[in-house]
Amino acid sequence: TRSKLPDVGTTIFTVIGQLSAQHNAINLSQGAPNFSCDPKLIAGVTRAMEAGHNQYAAMTGLQPLKERIVDKIATLYGTRYDASSEVLITASASEGLYSAISGLVHPGDEVIYFEPSFDSYAPIVRLQGATPVAIKLTVPDFAVDWDEVRAAVTPRTRMIIINTPHNPSGQVFSAQDLEQLAAITRQTDIIILSDEVYEHVVFDGQPHHGMATHPQLAERSVIISSFGKTYHVTGWRVGYCVAPAELMDEICKVHQFLMFSADTPMQYAFAEHMADPQTWLSLSAFYQRKRDLLQNLLAESPFRLLPSAGSFFLLADYSHFSDESDSEMVKRLIVDSGVATIPLSAFYTDGTDNKLIRLSFAKDEATLRAGAQALCRVK
Amino acid sequence: TRSKLPDVGTTIFTVIGQLSAQHNAINLSQGAPNFSCDPKLIAGVTRAMEAGHNQYAAMTGLQPLKERIVDKIATLYGTRYDASSEVLITASASEGLYSAISGLVHPGDEVIYFEPSFDSYAPIVRLQGATPVAIKLTVPDFAVDWDEVRAAVTPRTRMIIINTPHNPSGQVFSAQDLEQLAAITRQTDIIILSDEVYEHVVFDGQPHHGMATHPQLAERSVIISSFGKTYHVTGWRVGYCVAPAELMDEICKVHQFLMFSADTPMQYAFAEHMADPQTWLSLSAFYQRKRDLLQNLLAESPFRLLPSAGSFFLLADYSHFSDESDSEMVKRLIVDSGVATIPLSAFYTDGTDNKLIRLSFAKDEATLRAGAQALCRVK
Ligand SMILES: CSCCC(=O)C(=O)O
Ligand SMILES: CSCCC(=O)C(=O)O
Repeated sequence: TRSKLPDVGTTIFTVIGQLSAQHNAINLSQGAPNFSCDPKLIAGVTRAMEAGHNQYAAMTGLQPLKERIVDKIATLYGTRYDASSEVLITASASEGLYSAISGLVHPGDEVIYFEPSFDSYAPIVRLQGATPVAIKLTVPDFAVDWDEVRAAVTPRTRMIIINTPHNPSGQVFSAQDLEQLAAITRQTDIIILSDEVYEHVVFDGQPHHGMATHPQLAERSVIISSFGKTYHVTGWRVGYCVAPAELMDEICKVHQFLMFSADTPMQYAFAEHMADPQTWLSLSAFYQRKRDLLQNLLAESPFRLLPSAGSFFLLADYSHFSDESDSEMVKRLIVDSGVATIPLSAFYTDGTDNKLIRLSFAKDEATLRAGAQALCRVK
Repeated sequence: TRSKLPDVGTTIFTVIGQLSAQHNAINLSQGAPNFSCDPKLIAGVTRAMEAGHNQYAAMTGLQPLKERIVDKIATLYGTRYDASSEVLITASASEGLYSAISGLVHPGDEVIYFEPSFDSYAPIVRLQGATPVAIKLTVPDFAVDWDEVRAAVTPRTRMIIINTPHNPSGQVFSAQDLEQLAAITRQTDIIILSDEVYEHVVFDGQPHHGMATHPQLAERSVIISSFGKTYHVTGWRVGYCVAPAELMDEICKVHQFLMFSADTPMQYAFAEHMADPQTWLSLSAFYQRKRDLLQNLLAESPFRLLPSAGSFFLLADYSHFSDESDSEMVKRLIVDSGVATIPLSAFYTDGTDNKLIRLSFAKDEATLRAGAQALCRVK
C-alpha cells in the first residue's frame, strides 16, 4: 500500500528496546525511569477510580488540574494563563506535540527545528503536507547558531520547534537564546512550539529558560509538558499544553477528534499530587545526583562525557578510540558489553554520525552502577 | 490565525454536557455510563501500578493483551489475526480512528462515510487533505442504500467508513450488508475502516456482523474497538485496532509518533480481566435490559421511539407533536424539562433536521426512570 512516510521505520526506542531485551542488557537507552513513583500518586489513582471517576473527562481536561498548572507556571515563570481557554490536558506530551502541529501547520508551510532532535517532530510535520527544515546544532556544544536560523526563515515559515532542556544532548537555552529567538520572530506570525517536558530537570542551580519566562515569546508560543517525565510515570500518558487562546482553539479542534479527553482517574491523581510544589521543585536535585553518579562512575571509562545541563541524558564520545559508526558502537555495546544506549545518529534525519552515544541516567543506582561498570570495560 | 477546520466548533458532546450541567439536567446525552465498572478491574489497575508497571508500554501494546484480543476475535468471528503484527493497542478508539485515517488516507483521496455519523470521521478526513463523501442513511430505518454507495465510488475512493452497531441510530449491519460491501469493494483497493466499538452490544439474540466475520472483507479492513465501551470505563482511554499487517504498518507509523504507547497499568488490568469471556459475552443482555426499560418507561410519553438493535442509543421522533428543529427541542428539553439528549442534526454535516433526538440508555436505572418521567411530561 502507498505510504505517507515511506522512509520511516520502527522508532529507535522500540528497535533498541527489543535488542536490549534479547541480550538481557542493562538498559540506559530510553528516558523511562526503572524506579517507582511516589506511592501517594498510585493511591490517588486508586482513590479516583473507587470514587467513580472513570468516564470521559472534560474535553480540555479536569478544571482543578488546569488551575494547578496555571498557578505553577505563574509562580515559576511569571506568565499567567487562563485555565479555561489556554490550558489543554493531553494524553501524553506526544499527543500534545501532534495536536499542536496538526492544528497549526498547514500544507506547504515550513517548520524549522533543530537536529539532533526527538524523532517525532519531522514526521509529524510531514504528515501535515508541510516541510520540516532541519538546522543542525553546533557540535560538540549543541548550541543554536542563530544566524543560521535567521537565514532559514522564509515567508512560508509557520513554526519553530524548540526543545529545552534538550533531548538528546542535555543542553539548555540561556536568556540570550530567548532574546535571539524573540528578535528573529518579532514582527512575524511565526509560532513557537516549545517542547519543555524536562522543564523541572535543570542542573547546577540554573533556572529553566522556557517560553513562559519571556512575555513576548509566550504570546506566540505553544508550550508542551509531561506528567510522565516529572512524576516517574511515563506509562500513564498524561501531559499538558498551554498557549494563547487563539492558538489553543485550533489545537483543541484536533485534540477533540483525535483523543477527545485524557485519562480521567490519572488527572484526578495529578491534580491532588500537584498541591505540593515540592513534587516538582525537588526533581532537579534528584536527577542531578543521578547525573553526577553516572559521570563519576564513568571517569575511568574510555568514553569522554559531554556536559549535561538538564534532561535525563548525557552524550558520550568514543571517537578517540574507535572509528565504528555510532550505530555499530551501540550494537557492539549491547551484544558484547551488555549495555544498551542510543546512537546519536538516530536523532538526525540524514544519519549524521558524530561518534556519540546517548546515555539515560533516569535509572536506579544499581542500574547506573552496573551500566557504568560494563562501559568501563569497553575497549 | 488561519484555521484548518474553520467551520468546526466545539463538539456537540461538550456543548450539551455543559448546558446539561448548568441546568442540572438528567443526562441522557453522551454514551458514557454513570454507573461503576467491575471493582475487579479497578483492583487490577491498582495491582499493576503497585507492581511497578508505570513506564512506557511497548509501542504496539502489551503482548498478553494483544493475544487475548486475537483469541476473542477468532472465537467470536472466525478470523485469526497475528498478535505481533496485526493488533495495535490505542489510547482510545478515537486515537485508533485517527491513526488509521491519518496513516492510510492521502491528500486528494475520497473517503465514503454514512450520515448521521459520529462527529469525528469527516474532520479527521479533512485534516488529511482528503475529501469526505457523505452518503445519507435512509430515514427512518437508517439502512445503507448500496446502490448509492456503488454510484459514489470513484477511482479516488480510498476508504469506506462503516460503523456497526451504529451511533447514533442503533442500527446494525446484516449479513446481506456485508455481501453488498464485499461486492462493491471486490477488485478495488478500497480499505474499509470499521468502527465496531459497540460490537458487544447487539440485541434480541442477533450476532454482530463485523468485518472479521467475513474473510474477504477482513482482508481489506481496519477494525476499531474500545475497552471503555465494553467495560464501563470510557475515561480510561484504551482501545484497539486490528488490520492485515500491510495496513497495520502504516497505522503504526502514525501511532508511534502521535502517541507512542497506551496507558500501561490499564493494559495490564484489561489483559487480566479479559481472561473471563463472560466480561464481554454478558454485555448485550446487560444493555438490552436498559434499552427495554427505557422503551417501556417511554411508552406513555409523547415521543415515538425508533427501534434500536444495538449500541447505547435509541432515537425518538417528535414530529407529530412539534415542528421545532431538533436542536430547539433539545434545548427546550434541557431548560424546561431538565433532561439532556442530543439532536440528531448534530450528526449531519449539513445539519439535516429529521425531528429526531438521540437518547443514551447507558445510565443506571434511577437515571433512566427520572429521565423517562421528565420526557413523559413533555408537551
Ligand atoms: C517515546 S520515547 C520518549 C522520549 C524518551 O524517553 C527518550 O528519548 O528516550
Ligand atoms: C467522545 S464521545 C464518544 C461517543 C459517545 O459517547 C457518544 O456518541 O455519546
